[in-house]
Amino acid sequence: MSIHSANHIILTGDRPTGPLHLGHLVGSLRGRVRLQHEFRQFCIIADMQALTDNAGNPEKIRSNILEVAFDYLAAGIDPKITTIFIQSLVPELSELTMYYLNLVTVSRLQRNPTVKDEIRLRRFARGIPVGFLCYPVSQAADITAFKADLVPVGSDQLPMIEQTTEIVRSFNRSHNCSVLVEPKPLLSSVPRLPGTDGKGKMSKSLDNAIYLSDTVDVVHDKVKKMYTDPSHLRPEDPGTVEGNPVFAYLDAFDPDKAGLDAMKAHYRHGGLGDTALKRRLLDVLLPELDTIRERRRLFARDPAQVMGILREGSRAARTVAAQTLEEVRKAMQLDYSSTN
Amino acid sequence: MSIHSANHIILTGDRPTGPLHLGHLVGSLRGRVRLQHEFRQFCIIADMQALTDNAGNPEKIRSNILEVAFDYLAAGIDPKITTIFIQSLVPELSELTMYYLNLVTVSRLQRNPTVKDEIRLRRFARGIPVGFLCYPVSQAADITAFKADLVPVGSDQLPMIEQTTEIVRSFNRSHNCSVLVEPKPLLSSVPRLPGTDGKGKMSKSLDNAIYLSDTVDVVHDKVKKMYTDPSHLRPEDPGTVEGNPVFAYLDAFDPDKAGLDAMKAHYRHGGLGDTALKRRLLDVLLPELDTIRERRRLFARDPAQVMGILREGSRAARTVAAQTLEEVRKAMQLDYSSTN
Repeated sequence: MSIHSANHIILTGDRPTGPLHLGHLVGSLRGRVRLQHEFRQFCIIADMQALTDNAGNPEKIRSNILEVAFDYLAAGIDPKITTIFIQSLVPELSELTMYYLNLVTVSRLQRNPTVKDEIRLRRFARGIPVGFLCYPVSQAADITAFKADLVPVGSDQLPMIEQTTEIVRSFNRSHNCSVLVEPKPLLSSVPRLPGTDGKGKMSKSLDNAIYLSDTVDVVHDKVKKMYTDPSHLRPEDPGTVEGNPVFAYLDAFDPDKAGLDAMKAHYRHGGLGDTALKRRLLDVLLPELDTIRERRRLFARDPAQVMGILREGSRAARTVAAQTLEEVRKAMQLDYSSTN
Repeated sequence: MSIHSANHIILTGDRPTGPLHLGHLVGSLRGRVRLQHEFRQFCIIADMQALTDNAGNPEKIRSNILEVAFDYLAAGIDPKITTIFIQSLVPELSELTMYYLNLVTVSRLQRNPTVKDEIRLRRFARGIPVGFLCYPVSQAADITAFKADLVPVGSDQLPMIEQTTEIVRSFNRSHNCSVLVEPKPLLSSVPRLPGTDGKGKMSKSLDNAIYLSDTVDVVHDKVKKMYTDPSHLRPEDPGTVEGNPVFAYLDAFDPDKAGLDAMKAHYRHGGLGDTALKRRLLDVLLPELDTIRERRRLFARDPAQVMGILREGSRAARTVAAQTLEEVRKAMQLDYSSTN
């Protein structure tokens, strides 16, 4: 890939609304662990963004910051090479957001397909909070503050990158400068992991997730209850591989691709029972999760140390964001250090 | 008035979009000069708010910051007792705004009568900037950051105070605290000064303003051309006092109220010419403007000193705003200094 030949800056991260699960591991964490060795990577724990639809429940955000950090560290994100930081500890992001809000119209935000989908999902009882409508602008601040030119996203998040690109162009054009950097989406080639119920994506709200923090017993139990092919009643019946979440998980976790292909053929033909299939999944899944769980346990034993890591990362992130903000203010002629 | 018996905190200020004029002097500056001796007063030069409808023209904001500061100091606002500060030099205001945006719905902002009026006035060619729609929330941050309980406003600004009150109540209720203080409007008893053309209020965009920075000759010229009573053709004709801007200015500037009443009777009856009337206005107006102009000239000679005053005021404002922000974050449980 051509991107590997240049120096890139990556912004990635999560909203701290719950512990991370296998969907995160497959969809983003593994990529981050790999990319951190190749590029400068910033990883945001987006507490302010999480508050845009959790204003009445900040304790949920507060408690999940450490949970997400434990998951990051356990999964192998290395704070020595990835800058892990808390969004609200980088106030420069708020100031940038305020300036960018003037470059975007209300109707443009209301047309954002991702925002529209999410508003539908959330069914805000008392109307849409302005902060929620504005979060794509806040994301543009997160991305541009670090001059990130690569943002790993799913295809449903492409409108957010587009919004950032528009802001970057508008700002640079307005102020006849090249201070802000246009980001490119880094689309994942890995298919999204379905939930254990086989219904769409894995998510906390659908109660169909296997968490990185789940115990061995819980993982056993969740795999045992996994949805498969409902018409595959007896082992000897032919079964369907497509849409069968157990195979989706095997695709993501089984290193023996030839053996997996043989298993798929066997299942389709008939003669491979769900119990044997799930046994194989546990065999490949549990060792990887054991390693993560053990590392997670060690980090969780010392939350003060982990909070220290986040504070240190936030300080480093501030230094970079403050430099960008200074350039932004200069371009806007809001530089009050002189009287000219 | 009961408000004088307690200790109050006042937030007041201007958008730096142009030099200040007689309308400001009568409507707000005189009040500030008086109130600064009675209460703790913060005076904001709202550059970020000015950018919400001037994003493409930041040099206008930049240059008018010092103009407004010269006007403040010339009019007698004393930086030793009034904290004069630049909005964007207090980044805590941006962070507070971000939190408050989650407490207000989009439709609530769209219903704000002041915002609706101003949107109509401005006729945004490319749609309404989100920042402009959000500026009442940013104002709520300005007011609450200093725990201001009194905000001098015109009656057209009452919806802004209402919006702040709603945010204060919503925040304190949500977080079961009393961190934020509800502001009360301090309605001016002085009627609004009309423009020299007699058409509505004095404003830069209507080109009907007499500026504090105008030279004697310019003031002479503007008063000479002032609109009076169009049916008062000859001195001996009866004239109308109501809606005659020269009398509105005399009401605001002539210290001899009995003499002014006699003049009004004379004008109504006939026999008092517009030239004599304007002569009287110049007699009372010019000495007051001379004093202001001379002080303004001295300040404008040393812009570095004035910028120093603004930077110093902004530092003082930051200290207060940072304290409030800390309380706000604590109430929201976003206090990351500990791991609890």
